[in-house]
Amino acid sequence: MYVSDCLGVNEKGHLTVSGCDTVDLAKEYGTPVIVYSEDQIRQNCRDFVSSIDENYGGNGMVLYASKAFCCKKMCRICKEEGMGLDVVSGGELYTAIDAGFPTEKIYFHGNNKTVAELVYAVEHGVGRVVVDNIFELERLDKIAHDLGKKVKILLRIKPGIDAHTHDFIRTGQIDSKFGFALETGEAMDAVVKAISFTNIELVGLHCHIGSQIFDIDPFELAAKVMLEFMADIKQDKGIEFKELNLGGGFGIKYLKTDAPRPFTEYMKKVACVVKETCKALNLDMPFVLIEPGRSIVGAAAVTLYTVGAVKKIPDVRTYVSVDGGMTDNPRYILYQSKYEILCANKANEERSETVTVAGKCCESGDLVQEWAPLQKVEPGDILAVLSTGAYNYSMASNYNRVPRPPVVMVKDSKPELAIRGESFSDMVKNDL
Amino acid sequence: MYVSDCLGVNEKGHLTVSGCDTVDLAKEYGTPVIVYSEDQIRQNCRDFVSSIDENYGGNGMVLYASKAFCCKKMCRICKEEGMGLDVVSGGELYTAIDAGFPTEKIYFHGNNKTVAELVYAVEHGVGRVVVDNIFELERLDKIAHDLGKKVKILLRIKPGIDAHTHDFIRTGQIDSKFGFALETGEAMDAVVKAISFTNIELVGLHCHIGSQIFDIDPFELAAKVMLEFMADIKQDKGIEFKELNLGGGFGIKYLKTDAPRPFTEYMKKVACVVKETCKALNLDMPFVLIEPGRSIVGAAAVTLYTVGAVKKIPDVRTYVSVDGGMTDNPRYILYQSKYEILCANKANEERSETVTVAGKCCESGDLVQEWAPLQKVEPGDILAVLSTGAYNYSMASNYNRVPRPPVVMVKDSKPELAIRGESFSDMVKNDL
Repeated sequence: MYVSDCLGVNEKGHLTVSGCDTVDLAKEYGTPVIVYSEDQIRQNCRDFVSSIDENYGGNGMVLYASKAFCCKKMCRICKEEGMGLDVVSGGELYTAIDAGFPTEKIYFHGNNKTVAELVYAVEHGVGRVVVDNIFELERLDKIAHDLGKKVKILLRIKPGIDAHTHDFIRTGQIDSKFGFALETGEAMDAVVKAISFTNIELVGLHCHIGSQIFDIDPFELAAKVMLEFMADIKQDKGIEFKELNLGGGFGIKYLKTDAPRPFTEYMKKVACVVKETCKALNLDMPFVLIEPGRSIVGAAAVTLYTVGAVKKIPDVRTYVSVDGGMTDNPRYILYQSKYEILCANKANEERSETVTVAGKCCESGDLVQEWAPLQKVEPGDILAVLSTGAYNYSMASNYNRVPRPPVVMVKDSKPELAIRGESFSDMVKNDL
Repeated sequence: MYVSDCLGVNEKGHLTVSGCDTVDLAKEYGTPVIVYSEDQIRQNCRDFVSSIDENYGGNGMVLYASKAFCCKKMCRICKEEGMGLDVVSGGELYTAIDAGFPTEKIYFHGNNKTVAELVYAVEHGVGRVVVDNIFELERLDKIAHDLGKKVKILLRIKPGIDAHTHDFIRTGQIDSKFGFALETGEAMDAVVKAISFTNIELVGLHCHIGSQIFDIDPFELAAKVMLEFMADIKQDKGIEFKELNLGGGFGIKYLKTDAPRPFTEYMKKVACVVKETCKALNLDMPFVLIEPGRSIVGAAAVTLYTVGAVKKIPDVRTYVSVDGGMTDNPRYILYQSKYEILCANKANEERSETVTVAGKCCESGDLVQEWAPLQKVEPGDILAVLSTGAYNYSMASNYNRVPRPPVVMVKDSKPELAIRGESFSDMVKNDL
């Protein structure tokens, strides 16, 4: 019925998340509030884990890309579901460590890790540092030396594939701040340099071709390109890598009309390409990693707001103002991202109006959605914006000194606070 | 020499802010760090205050639009400089109160103030609530009644002028989430309703026509339109308002090629229009308010970063990665805003390269600037991005769980911390 399986409508005509009445949740936690279905998140985790087990015969691991939504609770869920973690900063690593996540299953990404971050990662024994550039390679070798450690790394490679939601191109992708370019020889130079260092162990390669990708072809092509590079390295340098990290970027449904290919199909097809290519190139099957983020959490959450004002401007449009906006969901002002919106307390009624949902910030661009179908609403109604689980809370700001909302997770129909909402006193906590 | 008077270069060839060596500041406070010239801020405040005194014969007040950059230190500066404050949320109001700002000089804006925010404002006796819509008017009257108070208000009017940086149009501006439209009769209806309420005292009108406006004409026109409306109200309802708040939006220089008209000229010309129009329409001169934000703080700050990697991609471009980015300055990813950038420790050298400065977030769009002229830099160099005082820290996020940087203010060549930098433990402070 909705973009996510965890959503429903109860006998009162109220929207539910995993059976929990969202109107009750809005009352209990106040608005705005972000409500996740923990059941849905765990189901998504299990689907990915079982799919990688099935398609690679147990020779792989799913890393949750925590930049999509990072908090201690998410780290605990990933740990309990047997997954690894992809972190991109010292702050995400700190969160994982603070949540008791096993550091050997953490992969540390980023185009510009600071010295302090690298020291912190090496001291805590992260599983892999995914090295982005030659300066980092040198820096890391020195840090590992100084700390008396040997650090396992992957190299981030630009496979020369630029995938968008609906299409992909094979050129131009070397114009990226991330990674080593294949076609310029930079990647091979980095391999040579990496294997020359004594405090570093190069165990494999990583690539990531984009975000919110709906097709399978670019993923197949990326896997093939990476394996061909591994075969070149084997032939030229006599080294066979054990690991291949194929990154993330699997598209999800924001609107009912979105049609991403099911990730099970992606897993099957890419695994097939990996097996065939390895056979053709005489490579041992590597340990394969994938990094879903949005596809784990994106459709598992809704954001609830209270309507404050309804401004009908004749022959222009109707603005429905809510008590949040770009501070908790900057994706519309950033990317004009589409969302499905409905009135949580009138979920059974027809969406007969077309409105613009405006946030409360003093910024004309602070809109949640334009020209969205919606039930006829009035002040006091609860609005639900669907599929707000990825890159919403994680990108939230305190613009206008608006406190960030609480995050609630529903498991077995019971809600539990995962992140406390900020208070006004949080706004001044670092002010002198 | 630079876009801001507070910047210079010392004998070491290092960039200075109010005489303070930025390379020393980077060492002392770490990077990224945002450095303001408090001297410059205070000078800007004084210039505005003396200009309004001069042009309106003491019958006016400058309100600092704190959404540009809000913290307790800024509130204290505004208080000491004899200014009022424009706040747009409970969080900004809380900050002002916590800093000891006199609440009677606070104007409370916003298109969707919540009931809790209105109660908080009325309880603390804010000077004016600038009412945005009819629901808020009703809500506020009830709240004032329940608290046994009479609340002074302005009404936010859409004068039908849409000003952009370089031009303006007189149509279409009723398509805004803010305020009451003049041309549909909505504004007059609101006046009638407001004066019928017993717990509200309507003392005047407010308008705001845009941001970063370079010309004076739209401001003149807005003042004229507002006074004409005041004359209509006087004629139709027999009421003459005492206050006219003309908002902000004065453009500043981000690049040396930017040419906003000096605000002293704006003040003089608009005051002239106000005086002439009042005379022509037989109105008493109202108390005039203006709301500069960006023009007080924008050019008074620089952001300092350390270069982590320099990635030259032959025939494509050079990426210079720094240790901050969209988390501390989201204006490039939001609006592709232009900034002047230079190497703080090589400020005397020629800017011979053309580079893209990239942030450290795991997001392709996390760029600080593209195709910017810059000195030849290497890892370890300090980059300074100029004119980052407005809508940078205030819009900062913790995306990728990157802590927000410290904010330092330099006064009489002495630096002092205004906002502490966040720690990793701040990142998990609300996580359960």
